[in-house]
Amino acid sequence: MPVPRPDLLPGTPIDTIETPALIVDLDTFEANLRLMADYAKARGLRLRPHGKTHKCAEIGKRQMALGAVGLCCQKVSEAVALVEGGVTDVLVTNEVLAPSKLARLVGLSARARIGICVDSDLGLDRLIEAAEKATSPIDAYVELEVGGHRCGIVDIEDGVALATRIAAGRNLRFGGIHAYQGAAQHLRTPGERQAAIAFATERAAALAAALARAGIEVPVITGAGTGTFPNEAASGVYNEIQPGSYVFMDRDYADNTADPAAPRFSHSLFVLTSVMSRRADFAVIDAGLKAHSIDCGYPTVAARPDLTFSNPSDEHGILRAANGVLPGLGERLRLIPGHCDPTVNLYDWIVIVRGGRVADIWAIDARGALA
Amino acid sequence: MPVPRPDLLPGTPIDTIETPALIVDLDTFEANLRLMADYAKARGLRLRPHGKTHKCAEIGKRQMALGAVGLCCQKVSEAVALVEGGVTDVLVTNEVLAPSKLARLVGLSARARIGICVDSDLGLDRLIEAAEKATSPIDAYVELEVGGHRCGIVDIEDGVALATRIAAGRNLRFGGIHAYQGAAQHLRTPGERQAAIAFATERAAALAAALARAGIEVPVITGAGTGTFPNEAASGVYNEIQPGSYVFMDRDYADNTADPAAPRFSHSLFVLTSVMSRRADFAVIDAGLKAHSIDCGYPTVAARPDLTFSNPSDEHGILRAANGVLPGLGERLRLIPGHCDPTVNLYDWIVIVRGGRVADIWAIDARGALA
Repeated sequence: MPVPRPDLLPGTPIDTIETPALIVDLDTFEANLRLMADYAKARGLRLRPHGKTHKCAEIGKRQMALGAVGLCCQKVSEAVALVEGGVTDVLVTNEVLAPSKLARLVGLSARARIGICVDSDLGLDRLIEAAEKATSPIDAYVELEVGGHRCGIVDIEDGVALATRIAAGRNLRFGGIHAYQGAAQHLRTPGERQAAIAFATERAAALAAALARAGIEVPVITGAGTGTFPNEAASGVYNEIQPGSYVFMDRDYADNTADPAAPRFSHSLFVLTSVMSRRADFAVIDAGLKAHSIDCGYPTVAARPDLTFSNPSDEHGILRAANGVLPGLGERLRLIPGHCDPTVNLYDWIVIVRGGRVADIWAIDARGALA
Repeated sequence: MPVPRPDLLPGTPIDTIETPALIVDLDTFEANLRLMADYAKARGLRLRPHGKTHKCAEIGKRQMALGAVGLCCQKVSEAVALVEGGVTDVLVTNEVLAPSKLARLVGLSARARIGICVDSDLGLDRLIEAAEKATSPIDAYVELEVGGHRCGIVDIEDGVALATRIAAGRNLRFGGIHAYQGAAQHLRTPGERQAAIAFATERAAALAAALARAGIEVPVITGAGTGTFPNEAASGVYNEIQPGSYVFMDRDYADNTADPAAPRFSHSLFVLTSVMSRRADFAVIDAGLKAHSIDCGYPTVAARPDLTFSNPSDEHGILRAANGVLPGLGERLRLIPGHCDPTVNLYDWIVIVRGGRVADIWAIDARGALA
């Protein structure tokens, strides 16, 4: 059963939002969107924000209205949701092997420009077969291992072989090199992140050079996340960046030492929670493991740095106060989630707020889109 | 946008299920249900299984068909989903302060027996106000702190005061004492769990005695989870148990040293996953943080104890093999999730399997029901 749309008219005071709820501060969110759009524009970089963070066609369309070339996502079902919501250019930054999924993805090519990554002959065999039914060409990118120890080809020559097959494929187009270094995003110091992306850049440049020697043009070298994009931007090799979390930010990104070259994004995403039980030495809030993801550590409390979150259970969390001043029974607080992406995936709706009032409600179109 | 029902007819081979997917082995699941029902029946205990684990009306109705007196849940929105799905007796084992939520809960009393916990005068004030509109009486339970350091009254006299007010309340009925010790469920040894529940039992008995002195009858003393229920069952004080996870089990429960007095439940719940990328020394699977919850640690792989899961990211996980024999590209595996409850909450549908084929598809009615 779908979770019903919250019954909140624009202008309703935020005090009436039932908790826990996912809320986004519209002013901060819009500022984050503009900061990244301006950053990319000023450097002549293609911006392809990652939709796995927000899973929301409304946000994707706003990103494209500010100049993004398209969106990224990780799953075919996310691509379906985004295209159905009106996003016209989607790159699945991931490998897909299941023929049924590839058929659905290719089916989207009637309505949107569609891209996907490959890192194996089997994956490409199946993509070639699915692409037979494409309405317009599918961009196939070779994913390159660049230090993240996840997907991607390791041997440069394997990349050349895949790109050669792609370039010859019916209804396929060689999209370029996918060189995303996910593990580098939360290295805490700018120096560590710079070193990791220097390695990724070297790998991407090596594959690009080998492709050039093979006579294959590389239209796009894409990668980067919110933690490292100034490094990819400055590399002279990447010409597209894929940041996702910058729209919302989270506690884990706040724990990074900021790169002086990066714009200053601010927290726009919060989990609104209420105190449901009070003891002398702690308050119990109604936001536990099903209301925010703790995979990257615990949340902090906006405007209350004296409060410490602990002991999450499925539907509860504990707050203790360094100065002894605990929030009262029924008091409402805003958590800054540890990790924005899996937190957003727990909700069907984002309540958009501005100046203490509900401004809008946006559907998280691809919530739970796993396949 | 709701996730569409998987397009799988009964009898379809499980190889056609797109991954990642939540699957339940029906034979094992039914055996778990019977084991707990028989256990409670043999001891004359009321069984009120916790619905926060499965959030599925179909499962709740099957539990009641085997003798359960009703279900528990944690949220009003869960109660709404379960009652709409046909469950006729629901206890919200939690405090609810928001008048809008209490109004919805009370509204369910036309169709089901409804219970709720209180641990504060403010909570009871609001319940009394909401109960004005009840169609049939609402069972209000006093929640008692029993060592879990979460919700519940600490002073026994506060419990007597709340129960006295409940007993006098219009459209209210004193349901009994809610004495659930959540923190004890995953103490690893039977001795530790026994000691924790001995303390909880002492506390529950003390409140029951004080209520008796005040002339208030205590119909039910309820609590217990899958980790501790043999202790509450043997206490001579509790007359109702609330286990939830036994229907599915998970890796965290498997890490408990089993209580010799407990029936042997088996894993019935799995996340079906596929290898999407392969390297010489690891395989990348398509089930990451959005496909299973790691709050209680990483999953294991069913039938492949030689494989170790690590490095989860949003949509990926890494498997390494102790003996070097990695699963191949496209190979399908079953993860035993670290923690079943928040894992189930990530899915809209459970694919029910029996003998290698799809047997049914059940809706997770209260998925995402947070309010």
